[in-house]
Amino acid sequence: MTPDRPPAATRRGRRPASEDTRSLIVEAARAEFADKGYDATTLRAVARNAGVDAALIHHYFDGKADLFAQAVVLTRVDPRIVIAGVLDGPLETLGDRIVRTFLAVWDDPDNGERLVAMLRAAQTNEDVAAVMRRVLVQDIVGQVTRRTGVSDAHLRGGMAATQLVGMATSRYLLRLSPVVDASHDDLARWIGPTLQRYLVDPA
Amino acid sequence: MTPDRPPAATRRGRRPASEDTRSLIVEAARAEFADKGYDATTLRAVARNAGVDAALIHHYFDGKADLFAQAVVLTRVDPRIVIAGVLDGPLETLGDRIVRTFLAVWDDPDNGERLVAMLRAAQTNEDVAAVMRRVLVQDIVGQVTRRTGVSDAHLRGGMAATQLVGMATSRYLLRLSPVVDASHDDLARWIGPTLQRYLVDPA
Repeated sequence: MTPDRPPAATRRGRRPASEDTRSLIVEAARAEFADKGYDATTLRAVARNAGVDAALIHHYFDGKADLFAQAVVLTRVDPRIVIAGVLDGPLETLGDRIVRTFLAVWDDPDNGERLVAMLRAAQTNEDVAAVMRRVLVQDIVGQVTRRTGVSDAHLRGGMAATQLVGMATSRYLLRLSPVVDASHDDLARWIGPTLQRYLVDPA
Repeated sequence: MTPDRPPAATRRGRRPASEDTRSLIVEAARAEFADKGYDATTLRAVARNAGVDAALIHHYFDGKADLFAQAVVLTRVDPRIVIAGVLDGPLETLGDRIVRTFLAVWDDPDNGERLVAMLRAAQTNEDVAAVMRRVLVQDIVGQVTRRTGVSDAHLRGGMAATQLVGMATSRYLLRLSPVVDASHDDLARWIGPTLQRYLVDPA
């Protein structure tokens, strides 16, 4: 808090109007999804609570699943920024960095519940699964394989996705005891080399 | 159909009465879960459709989640028998055999839908998750690590579970395209060595 930084209200006041509208929708959506769950939430109710016209939601978001992903997870955790951080280091230790960064994000109480809600919804709802496919395959794994430059990137990226999805599902949804009990060091030591082989090592 | 084999009705007639009662409950439960889904199915309705007293269900099954697992999946696919088949071969190629056997069972149209239903239910319902934890950690992974005799079996088994859960979730629930498109050979070539390292190789 230095005198140079304007207070939050002032900063929000200077943002373009469109940013404010989008934020209002995101806030209303977050409350509505948390309260009613994915299936029972309607875009009409979100629009009403945000005080905007329902058509405006479609201007900013590609339907309910996209709004869910943006409001619940992606405004807090931007996978492209997380992955850019992971890629900023030697390629020889990439697998280890992916595991540790992934766990740091998921074990953070401020994010964890939101990520679990999204992973769970993706496994029961096809629209949310489609958003998760795009984020996981394009934004996360695609960015990594472009950096590592492996030849069969589509298949290798898919293999890495199976291991990351499996770590998250086992630890946070099914809560398998050996995976819940494992430390970040344990998981990095075992799963790091797997991701290294899938994403970096020669076939 | 040889004259030596008695017709089904006769064989059923010779089974002990308890087997018949259990089968009646399993059949009624299967129909009810398929029709109503896990959450809306009640043991009372299953008992009524099976023509038995509700208390009898508790004699044969440890609650609704256990009945669900038994009726929907485990009467068709007994993981202990599948794993016994996988273990019947050289330890050096165990990872490869696990991946190929797992895919053969899940890609079989007679089983696949049931397994997907159970995996999905396990991710949204804590009671089903508890049954799946027991089957996956004790019956499947526990049986393998007892055979391979590795020292930190609990952790290593957990790591193998993450990779198997992730392969199933990515291919059958999230339907990530690189994992759906991958052949059994692709998956065995990439994921087989991962399971080999988790379950067999020295640390």
